[in-house]
Amino acid sequence: MTSDLLVVGGGPAGYAAALEGAALGLSTVLVEKSELGGTCLNIGCIPTKLYLGATEAVEELAAARRLRLATGEVSVDLSALKQRKDRFLAATRKAMQAKLEAAGVTLRRGQARFDAEGAVEIVDETGSHILTFERAILAAGSEVVDLPALPADNERILNSTQALELSTPPARLAIVGGGFIGLEMGQIFARLGSEITLVEALDRLASVEDPEVSAELARSFKRAGWTIKLGTKVMGHEKTAEGLTLSLESGESVLADACLVVVGRQPSAKNLNVEAAGAKLTPRGAVEVDAQLKAAPRLYAVGDVNARTMLAHAAEHQARYAVNHLAGKTGHAYVDTGLPSIVYGAPEVVRVGSLAAELKDLGQSVQVSRAPLAANAIAQAHGQTAGFVKVTWSGGRIRGVTAVGHQVSRLATLAEVMVRQGWTERHAEALIFPHPTLDEALLEAVKGKREEV
Amino acid sequence: MTSDLLVVGGGPAGYAAALEGAALGLSTVLVEKSELGGTCLNIGCIPTKLYLGATEAVEELAAARRLRLATGEVSVDLSALKQRKDRFLAATRKAMQAKLEAAGVTLRRGQARFDAEGAVEIVDETGSHILTFERAILAAGSEVVDLPALPADNERILNSTQALELSTPPARLAIVGGGFIGLEMGQIFARLGSEITLVEALDRLASVEDPEVSAELARSFKRAGWTIKLGTKVMGHEKTAEGLTLSLESGESVLADACLVVVGRQPSAKNLNVEAAGAKLTPRGAVEVDAQLKAAPRLYAVGDVNARTMLAHAAEHQARYAVNHLAGKTGHAYVDTGLPSIVYGAPEVVRVGSLAAELKDLGQSVQVSRAPLAANAIAQAHGQTAGFVKVTWSGGRIRGVTAVGHQVSRLATLAEVMVRQGWTERHAEALIFPHPTLDEALLEAVKGKREEV
Repeated sequence: MTSDLLVVGGGPAGYAAALEGAALGLSTVLVEKSELGGTCLNIGCIPTKLYLGATEAVEELAAARRLRLATGEVSVDLSALKQRKDRFLAATRKAMQAKLEAAGVTLRRGQARFDAEGAVEIVDETGSHILTFERAILAAGSEVVDLPALPADNERILNSTQALELSTPPARLAIVGGGFIGLEMGQIFARLGSEITLVEALDRLASVEDPEVSAELARSFKRAGWTIKLGTKVMGHEKTAEGLTLSLESGESVLADACLVVVGRQPSAKNLNVEAAGAKLTPRGAVEVDAQLKAAPRLYAVGDVNARTMLAHAAEHQARYAVNHLAGKTGHAYVDTGLPSIVYGAPEVVRVGSLAAELKDLGQSVQVSRAPLAANAIAQAHGQTAGFVKVTWSGGRIRGVTAVGHQVSRLATLAEVMVRQGWTERHAEALIFPHPTLDEALLEAVKGKREEV
Repeated sequence: MTSDLLVVGGGPAGYAAALEGAALGLSTVLVEKSELGGTCLNIGCIPTKLYLGATEAVEELAAARRLRLATGEVSVDLSALKQRKDRFLAATRKAMQAKLEAAGVTLRRGQARFDAEGAVEIVDETGSHILTFERAILAAGSEVVDLPALPADNERILNSTQALELSTPPARLAIVGGGFIGLEMGQIFARLGSEITLVEALDRLASVEDPEVSAELARSFKRAGWTIKLGTKVMGHEKTAEGLTLSLESGESVLADACLVVVGRQPSAKNLNVEAAGAKLTPRGAVEVDAQLKAAPRLYAVGDVNARTMLAHAAEHQARYAVNHLAGKTGHAYVDTGLPSIVYGAPEVVRVGSLAAELKDLGQSVQVSRAPLAANAIAQAHGQTAGFVKVTWSGGRIRGVTAVGHQVSRLATLAEVMVRQGWTERHAEALIFPHPTLDEALLEAVKGKREEV
């Protein structure tokens, strides 16, 4: 069996690639080794958003209670939530499969392994099959990274996938890793009643974000009662009858009923034999790609597997670009100006375009302007006024926006338009910002005094 | 005392006009008869948003409970909420006054009455004073409309201003008027524990919205337990020891502890003697303006008083335009393409640009495309999946967006950009919509099949 386009992986990137290929009239095969939807749908962005959404009342009540406006108690049933999550994911996977079939995509279940430049071996329960192709898109995704000092046992020591399978929250949860996954998971379990201790090896939370954002996150979660230990590593652990004890580099120890290890994700590129297709792995284990996202003459690699930007919407965007490129519909290099990223919860974080430090590293003259959320009526309405919006400028145009605070995810797509279109202050002033909205904090930040950094 | 610019009214329009005038170097006087901030800050958008924000936990708990994910009880203390509201409003007014003073605006308290084309009489506790001016901006705002059958007594029969002064919620609240004020107020009191009966003379709620939006609102509030009576008027009332009884045109009667009358607002133009300045009133009682928002050779009228669009952000936008026009900075007619409007609560409503029916009335060929919120992961996460996004097209470009559902206010400003810039489907597809976000429902609606209407 041969095809115009063979796609390896049925996550956000592979799914988008297959649909785009079929829409362009290519005979398209999609190979998936386990479930459609990949990390994002099954064990990543979607289940965490379902858990955060269902526990929102706990957060809003806490905010109203801090202002002495409300009393009460909200208790969320994790077991029921997990069942709803599983039902929703199954329904979504079914809808994805139906959409692929309706588009004429051939879905093959099995583990792929490249055999030659135009051939891939698929291993399934019936044996081994060779599929040939004109062009292939590798969208194999990523997998959790284990810590040698804390190997996941799916009992006391959990990775993020296992944590999403729990039916009861641990009374004391230690989280190792202060990136966005650790922060979202920490909030979910805090709202479910867990006492959170977070350990991060670096000296700040969410280290890819603006340092001021990291500081605000730490303040916020400490205020919410978390114990946060920065700049120290877990050196070892001991399991006891009551739980486990983590020994930190700092000499401290952390007692917990369970420990969640969320120290990052790595490309799932190891067992694919990409070298047979003419591709190479980077030292980090990602598939190396050029400016057109090509890994080899007939192979593109998109999404987490190229480790360029490990975000579902970036993966989809890369996938659609790659299909259009291989079909000769576009010739230019891949660009993702203004790519937005979001950390959900309370506070939320949004980052679009470039941080000031990134532009300075490129030798550009950079200014920042800002606005505090405390001046915003919607932030005040929710009693969650900590945080700010910060705009990065270069050459008189908006190059980046970052914000931390209550519901700042609202600003992401508008900020992306500002960055992609290179707005000046006049562009923002010409828009009629609806009142009252959180968006007005973005306008205030755009209009704020610009300071050289 | 004379000035380059005299502004009557210190609400959103007058405040923006005075600051803009001072920024342009005009000697500026602002006359306010009561409190800075006008309807929006003191008795309108801001207090209602504070009340909706503080009661959000009740709504989120109800949604999680409908899905059997959560149990509990949240009780919001209206007396504490009212005190917080009053403190926040006072602080905001103080900040506004400080900003006016810092900008060099002269603030005069008193009731204004035009005396001649370039003169206004100000009456305050010390007597009557004449101020002369080169140009004036009238931003006198609006006031509540009473129903003859239900005159407000600030006891059993309340207008919206009085309802925001309550310290305890009525057990049974009848609301007369199903526009956005009635809907937001109804939600506030429902969350505070009131049993709501809503009476609307027209045959649908929120009659300025798309009819499908009205239908979804009715379904949603009925599901939340409201009694809704459409297409019937209140003919009379009787006060009793236990409360009051409303007699409806339909022959039914409604028993309630209190009744809130929210049948609209009218321009506050009656006592200003605008004729002396050369201006005229429309039959509806608004100050008549031309395409440049001019009411007379030396007078502009902006905001609610011209009844063009009774929204704070529209008022501010008109005010800044008028100052720039009178200062010779702009010559073109006033335009407000894509003006957004929002109804807050759960569900929310957003409307930007033109509805399909409005464009059809102009004789244009119109298409609509749509997406249900049920397919959106963020709507699913909050367990609030009713509603939709609907896009209006003409000439292949986006002319309007309307949506109803959980947190659809998030879409307002981005939708405004789409309408103002006349986006095609390609513009939306070129944007990387962050995943998962409610914004993706807007993208799906843009990409949806277009149907002729």
